[in-house]
Amino acid sequence: MTKTNLSLDAERLWADIMRLAEITDPARPWTRRSFTALFLEGRAWLAKRFAEAGLVTRIDTAGNLIGRLEGLNPALGVIAIGSHSDSVPSGGRFDGMAGLATGLEIVRSLRDAGIRPQHTIEVVDFLAEEPSEYGLACIGSRGMGGALDARMLDLTEPGGEKLRDALRRVGGDPDRLAEAKRDDVSAYLELHIEQGIVLESRALDVGIVTTIVGVRRIEIIFQGEADHAGTTPMALRHDALVAAAHTVAAVRGVAEQLAAEGADYFVATVGILNVEPSASNIVPGRCRLIIDARSTAPALIQRFTETIDRESQAHAAAARVTRASFTIVSDGPPVACDENLRSALRQGARDLGLGETDLPSGAGHDAVYMSRICPSAMVFVPCRAGKSHTPEEWAHRDAIAAGAEVIFQALRELDQTLR
Amino acid sequence: MTKTNLSLDAERLWADIMRLAEITDPARPWTRRSFTALFLEGRAWLAKRFAEAGLVTRIDTAGNLIGRLEGLNPALGVIAIGSHSDSVPSGGRFDGMAGLATGLEIVRSLRDAGIRPQHTIEVVDFLAEEPSEYGLACIGSRGMGGALDARMLDLTEPGGEKLRDALRRVGGDPDRLAEAKRDDVSAYLELHIEQGIVLESRALDVGIVTTIVGVRRIEIIFQGEADHAGTTPMALRHDALVAAAHTVAAVRGVAEQLAAEGADYFVATVGILNVEPSASNIVPGRCRLIIDARSTAPALIQRFTETIDRESQAHAAAARVTRASFTIVSDGPPVACDENLRSALRQGARDLGLGETDLPSGAGHDAVYMSRICPSAMVFVPCRAGKSHTPEEWAHRDAIAAGAEVIFQALRELDQTLR
Repeated sequence: MTKTNLSLDAERLWADIMRLAEITDPARPWTRRSFTALFLEGRAWLAKRFAEAGLVTRIDTAGNLIGRLEGLNPALGVIAIGSHSDSVPSGGRFDGMAGLATGLEIVRSLRDAGIRPQHTIEVVDFLAEEPSEYGLACIGSRGMGGALDARMLDLTEPGGEKLRDALRRVGGDPDRLAEAKRDDVSAYLELHIEQGIVLESRALDVGIVTTIVGVRRIEIIFQGEADHAGTTPMALRHDALVAAAHTVAAVRGVAEQLAAEGADYFVATVGILNVEPSASNIVPGRCRLIIDARSTAPALIQRFTETIDRESQAHAAAARVTRASFTIVSDGPPVACDENLRSALRQGARDLGLGETDLPSGAGHDAVYMSRICPSAMVFVPCRAGKSHTPEEWAHRDAIAAGAEVIFQALRELDQTLR
Repeated sequence: MTKTNLSLDAERLWADIMRLAEITDPARPWTRRSFTALFLEGRAWLAKRFAEAGLVTRIDTAGNLIGRLEGLNPALGVIAIGSHSDSVPSGGRFDGMAGLATGLEIVRSLRDAGIRPQHTIEVVDFLAEEPSEYGLACIGSRGMGGALDARMLDLTEPGGEKLRDALRRVGGDPDRLAEAKRDDVSAYLELHIEQGIVLESRALDVGIVTTIVGVRRIEIIFQGEADHAGTTPMALRHDALVAAAHTVAAVRGVAEQLAAEGADYFVATVGILNVEPSASNIVPGRCRLIIDARSTAPALIQRFTETIDRESQAHAAAARVTRASFTIVSDGPPVACDENLRSALRQGARDLGLGETDLPSGAGHDAVYMSRICPSAMVFVPCRAGKSHTPEEWAHRDAIAAGAEVIFQALRELDQTLR
């Protein structure tokens, strides 16, 4: 395969994104949660599109949907292009799908031009990149990267199903997970919407990702006493929500402080807060909250954790409740993207006359786990007002096409140079 | 009917309480939520017990289950004894049922002794005394007191059913609600567990309720923006939970202050806090909380409301979110119990050689709405550690029997004197 003036079909790429978006929970677009019937419907459609593009399609034991185009020189290994087709509840149409459609359009364009690459190309729809009902994100890429362990397979969703059984239900095989781990991938490339406002605000076409933030999730449980809200005097209460509320305020305060230091990127969020028993006339007896802390600097995440550990303990004592749990439920360090791939992507953007910049990713991605088994890199494209994980999420057709062209350009370069 | 040495059967009274308790959601005892299949199962059992006691049983148009023993002199009107058979989620076995079993045991004892009262006696199981899924408490007693209006009938539970239809489902008739309002009741008496620690800590047998606190419920909704928790810098967030958390802290702080003033009883609670979309990696876009404020003094509830109105507005501004709603969803003023009935109850306790005291009720009760149509009064019996609305709720067999004897004694006195 040589570099030519080959170009992708922007309209065909866009049509795939719009078509998959229609497979949504109609009550709350755009929702296609991993492991649901809708998710499987989306995948059936994707598998059909993969096959139409001439790809040999399969589901690996970690539940990833893979379309494969055999290369001329199998010894060179695989260049994988991927992302994910699942969404958060009431999410967007682009997060995940833009990257999948990019991979699909690239292999279609190669086929239309009658070009057979040296490397085998795989388009991968990673299973459950978004936090799933089982309390775990990036399930498929963890599997491919060899980071999905038996403890994780025992995670259970609120309805009682274990991840192990859910994985079987979507075509994976929890008993043969080791087979999903790959040692034949030479490079992983992913296009994604930025989910931030840097590219839009600077009117740039693409971002070449330098580092993907580390993400630590902490679960805190406060245990108080569920007393009658009318007859329990203020001085005798053990109100779990009071401790939780002060902790939410502390998370915000500490995060603002660490972000303001400016040297490294830092954000922290309480996105889940459950109150039990949740009745207007009962003092909350138990509260559970999940903190999501992210940074390009592990030291900041550690400082944050220690401060919130102390503060939540103090707020529990002040509310006369027990801090029943302070648990780091998941912890991924920051991951640097591969310099060689970044340079191919940068060159691709320059050859195409596009405005590009280096930037960190505040969001986790499947590339985090792929980087455990192969050089990995990402291209960001601008999205309107930085909005993501919300129905208003939007990226322009031409913006996605430009990013996809950068990956296409880099792929053709890497197909020649990558050994 | 004359006063005699008649005594109730404490064991039979206790057995009824224990037997109804068994009709519970097995996954979370003791739960028998109004309008559920379990609730109807409990009522079917109660209706059978009513009939066995010789009561003529019916359900009125407000959904109250009523057992009636016709008096010798119908012109004297009805003496009603009642409470409720529904529970909060994971509630207790005594809140409500102790009062129903008291009424039932009193009519059984009269029948066993071959005594026919002058007044007609009704035992009433009021519909949905606890806050229901429709966002309303005391549904049946509101109906009997003429305080259930068309707006309330349009309230909808999360599954989409209107209260109007639910009422029909349990045997009421929303189109003929006016028929439930009574003008023939001469007195209403209710036994209830104290749900507080005054009686236990002072080793007293019964409390004669002076005033039932006023209860105001306020709904606050904060509307922010559901952004990506990884890519939205702290300075650009519109986090609805941050405003809600500061408001929860304010409710606690202001309530502690008002309670500490000491002249009047005051408590306030946030028992419900919903976060949307509730995902660990999404900044909360919307939060709804319900505040429950109670006092014997309307002025304190008003001061509290005004302070929280100001503070929640300020917390919304600080978090850069909108306070989309600050709504008083229900508002009941404090209600004084009838002096004549209280004096009969006090005399009854003294005749029985029991230790008694006057005390306010921090909990709302059906007596609040009954007092709109007739003189009403309540007797409290001690419960262990003041615990209520929790599975550990406990009252001794003899403590309940003593309170029931006080009502029985007063009933026989009032049957002679009440015109």
